[in-house]
Amino acid sequence: MAEKKLVEQITSMEEDFAQWYTDVVLKSDLIGYTSVKGCMAIKPAGYAIWELIQRQLDDRFRETGVQNVYMPMFIPESLLQKEKDHVEGFAPEVAWVTHGGLQPLAERLCVRPTSETLFCDFYKNDIHSYRDLPRVYNQWCSVVRWEKETRPFLRSREFLWQEGHTAHATADEAEARTIQMLNVYADFCEEVLAIPVIRGRKTDKEKFAGAKATYTIEALMHDGKALQSGTSHDFGDGFAKAFGIQYTDRDNTLKYVHQTSWGVTTRLIGALIMVHGDNSGLVLPPKVAPTQVVIVPIQQRKEGVLEKAAQLKDRLCHFRVKVDDTDKSPGWKFAEAEMRGIPLRVEIGPKDLAAGKCVLVRRDTGEKIECALDEIETRTGALLDQIQSEMLLRARAHRDAHTFTAYHMDEMERILNETPGFVKAMWCGSQACEDQIKERFAATSRCMPFEQETLSDVCVCCGKPARKMVYWGKAY
Amino acid sequence: MAEKKLVEQITSMEEDFAQWYTDVVLKSDLIGYTSVKGCMAIKPAGYAIWELIQRQLDDRFRETGVQNVYMPMFIPESLLQKEKDHVEGFAPEVAWVTHGGLQPLAERLCVRPTSETLFCDFYKNDIHSYRDLPRVYNQWCSVVRWEKETRPFLRSREFLWQEGHTAHATADEAEARTIQMLNVYADFCEEVLAIPVIRGRKTDKEKFAGAKATYTIEALMHDGKALQSGTSHDFGDGFAKAFGIQYTDRDNTLKYVHQTSWGVTTRLIGALIMVHGDNSGLVLPPKVAPTQVVIVPIQQRKEGVLEKAAQLKDRLCHFRVKVDDTDKSPGWKFAEAEMRGIPLRVEIGPKDLAAGKCVLVRRDTGEKIECALDEIETRTGALLDQIQSEMLLRARAHRDAHTFTAYHMDEMERILNETPGFVKAMWCGSQACEDQIKERFAATSRCMPFEQETLSDVCVCCGKPARKMVYWGKAY
Repeated sequence: MAEKKLVEQITSMEEDFAQWYTDVVLKSDLIGYTSVKGCMAIKPAGYAIWELIQRQLDDRFRETGVQNVYMPMFIPESLLQKEKDHVEGFAPEVAWVTHGGLQPLAERLCVRPTSETLFCDFYKNDIHSYRDLPRVYNQWCSVVRWEKETRPFLRSREFLWQEGHTAHATADEAEARTIQMLNVYADFCEEVLAIPVIRGRKTDKEKFAGAKATYTIEALMHDGKALQSGTSHDFGDGFAKAFGIQYTDRDNTLKYVHQTSWGVTTRLIGALIMVHGDNSGLVLPPKVAPTQVVIVPIQQRKEGVLEKAAQLKDRLCHFRVKVDDTDKSPGWKFAEAEMRGIPLRVEIGPKDLAAGKCVLVRRDTGEKIECALDEIETRTGALLDQIQSEMLLRARAHRDAHTFTAYHMDEMERILNETPGFVKAMWCGSQACEDQIKERFAATSRCMPFEQETLSDVCVCCGKPARKMVYWGKAY
Repeated sequence: MAEKKLVEQITSMEEDFAQWYTDVVLKSDLIGYTSVKGCMAIKPAGYAIWELIQRQLDDRFRETGVQNVYMPMFIPESLLQKEKDHVEGFAPEVAWVTHGGLQPLAERLCVRPTSETLFCDFYKNDIHSYRDLPRVYNQWCSVVRWEKETRPFLRSREFLWQEGHTAHATADEAEARTIQMLNVYADFCEEVLAIPVIRGRKTDKEKFAGAKATYTIEALMHDGKALQSGTSHDFGDGFAKAFGIQYTDRDNTLKYVHQTSWGVTTRLIGALIMVHGDNSGLVLPPKVAPTQVVIVPIQQRKEGVLEKAAQLKDRLCHFRVKVDDTDKSPGWKFAEAEMRGIPLRVEIGPKDLAAGKCVLVRRDTGEKIECALDEIETRTGALLDQIQSEMLLRARAHRDAHTFTAYHMDEMERILNETPGFVKAMWCGSQACEDQIKERFAATSRCMPFEQETLSDVCVCCGKPARKMVYWGKAY
C-alpha cells in the first residue's frame, strides 16, 4: 500500500532515535541540506512553524513592554573583547570576516554569535538619564556559532532566534525582568507548544559567559534526554562597567545600569519534534500547526464529493485548513498528512454525503470520530482545543514518568544507563562534584529548580551537607 | 519655547536637503549610529515602520501563493562563481569570512549580498518533476554589500530586505511572475506608503547582474532625485543552465526551469522620509504609522483631564493610539509628535471637557478640526483614511509637477541643473547615448516605462531613430 511506502522510510524511534529524528525532519519537509556545511535550508513547512512561534511569542513580549529593534550582524574584534568572560566564551566559535570587497579590513569583524556587546555599545550612547530607563529591546535575527557537529534545528552553524537585551536602573529590577522573561518562555512552551518545562537556575559552571546568573527552562525529550529550551541571563552591572554604561539618577549622581538578556531559538522546533513526534512522523500542537485541518475527499471523482469538501473548507475558514484534492490515493494522503503532523483530518466520501456526516481523525491519538456535517465548526474547534490540552498532559505524564530520584552515585549511574530521564539529586554546591558526575555519567546539571525539594541532607556525590536539589541529565 | 528648540535642531530642507534628511532620521529616533562602520542600529520607532511594511507586504505576497523560507547567510566562493555575470557584479562588494573559530576555512564564504546562487543550489536538489513547479519562495533577511559611502536606509553595508526567488516550467510563466510582483510592489507603494511610482523596465546597462530583464519601480523624492524602490528580475533559464536545474516534463523530457527574483529593502523607509517629510520632521501615512493617533492632554493636572484622555484612548483602541501624559509641556509634546510623523493629534483640555469636544490636528496639513467627543471614533477613522489618500494625491501632484520633457541635450541639461526631477526623453537604444548622458549630466536612465509615449521620432542624444521613451534622472 502507498501509505506503507511513505512510512517505511522512517526508522522507528525505538530502534534508533537519532535516525528517526533525521528521517522525520526530512520526510516532513521541514528542511533541506545545503552546500554550506553545517547550515540548513528551512523549507516552507518548517519556516511556517517558526513564523507561528515568532508571532505568538512576540505578542507575549509586547504585553510586557518589549520593543523590537535591529542591530548590525558584525562585531568589531575590539568590541567583542571588552568583557573578559564573554570573549573567552565566544571567541573560539565565531566566524571572522577579514575582507570587505577586494580589500583586507583594518580590523576583523566577527559575525554575531550573540549581541550583548553590540547592545552595550549602543546603550552607552543611548542612555543618559533615569528617564531613559528601562530599555527593553529585542531583535529577531540569525546568529552564527562555528559548531563542529551539527544537527538540524538542534545545533547548526547559523540559526534563527530572538535575543532580548535590557537595561535597568536597579539590580532588583534587572533580576525581576530576568525571571519575568523566563516565565514568559515557560508559559509559552506549555500553553502553545504543549511542552512542559522545569524552570530553574543554572549552576555557575553552566551559566552564560559573562552572566551573574543564568535561568533556564529544561524540557525532556521522548528518548529521555534533556533539551535546554530557553535561557534568561542577569548580568548585574558587569557589562555596564566593562562598556561604561552610566546614567544620571534622580539624585544627580552617575550610576551603572543593570542588564539582562534572554533568548529562544529554532531549537524549539527540534523540541516539538522530539516531544510529540511518533513513528508516523510529526505531531504538531494545533497552535503552531501551519495546517490545523486537512480535508481528504474519498472517491473524489464521485458526484458532489469535491464540492462538499470545498464547502467544508469554507465553513472551517477561521482555522488553518486545506483540502487535499490531488490525484494521490486517500491512503497516501492520510500518510502524508500524518507525516506532516496535521492535528485533525476530515474524511468525506459519497457514503458520508448521503448520511450527512463525515469522519474526523485525530493525529495525536488516531481516534476516529463521526460528526454530523452541520456540527463541523463547533466539533472542530472543540477537538483542536482538546488535542492541544491533551498533548500537554501526555507530555507531562511522560516527563514525570521519566523523572527519578537518586540518593547515591551508583543509583544515579543505574538510572542514567537503564532508564534515561531527569535525575533529581541533592548537591553540595561544589564544582568538583559536578565535574565528577559529568565525567562518570556524561550527565550535566540541568538546573537548580525554583521548586526545591529536600530529598536528603547530603550531596549525592561527596556526602557533604547538601545545599540545593538539582535536576541532572544527559542533554542535547 | 520648548517646541522651537526641538525643531531648531533640524536643518530646513530648502537649505540643505541631505542634512535635513540626516537630522530627521536621527531626531525622529529611527536609527542610531554604531561602532560598526557603515551599519546602523534601527531603533524601535524605525523598526516598527519596517514591521508594518513587512506584515502588509507579506500578506500581499501570500495572496499570490508565495511561501516563506530561510536559506543560509553564507555562500561558498565556488557557488558564487557559477554564473559569470552574477559573480562579476557582486564579487567586488562582498564581505568574506575566512576563519571559523580558530581555524582558517578550506574555502572562503561570502556573506550573502543576494541569494540567487543559494536558491539555485537548493532548487537543483528540490525540483525533479513538473509537479514540483512552480516554486514561489521568499525570505525576509539581511544582506551585506561593502559600500564605500553609506547613508541611513538609503545605502548601508548591511540592510534588511525580502528576496523572492521562483522557478517555473516556462519562460512565459516566469515573465508573468516578474511583472506580477512588480505590480504588487507598485500597488503597495501607492496604497500603503502613499508613494506614486513609475513602473518600467531597466535598460541593459542598468539591469541586474545575470538577469535577462530587470523591471523597476521608480519614485521621485522631494528634492527631485529619483529613488529605485523595488526591482523584479526575469532570469530566463540562464541560472538554471549554470546550476543544472532541470525537471522532467509531462512528455518525459528533461527541461531547464525559468527563474525570477524580486526584492524591496529598508530603503522604502528612506523613501517615506524623502517623499512625505517636511521641516517639522517625519510625516507618516497612517497605514505604516506605528502610532496613528496621539492624545495630548492640556493642563493635565486639572480634574478629569487625564481620565478623559484615558477614556478616549480606550474608545480609539482599534487604532494604534497613545496618550502622552509625560510631564513635558504641551508645546514640546506637539513638536515631538510632529517630529515622529504621527498622523493625527487629539488635544483635550478642561475647556474642551466642559464643551464636550476636543481638537483634532492633522500632521500632514496642520489643519485643526473641532470634534464632538461622542463622534471621535468615526471622525478619527474618516480622517486617517482622508490623510492616507490625500498624501498620495499630493505626492503624485509633486511628482507630476517635477516631470519634464526634453527633446534636445541642452534642454535636458537645463532641466537637470535648474529644475531637478524626472526627464522624459526619447532614446535610440544604444548604450553610447546612455553613457554620454550619464557622463555629461550625472543622470541615469531610470526606466523604460510600461506606459510609453511618442514624444518625438528621434533620440534626444544622437538624433537617430528613437526606439523607447525613457525616464532619466539623478538618483540616490
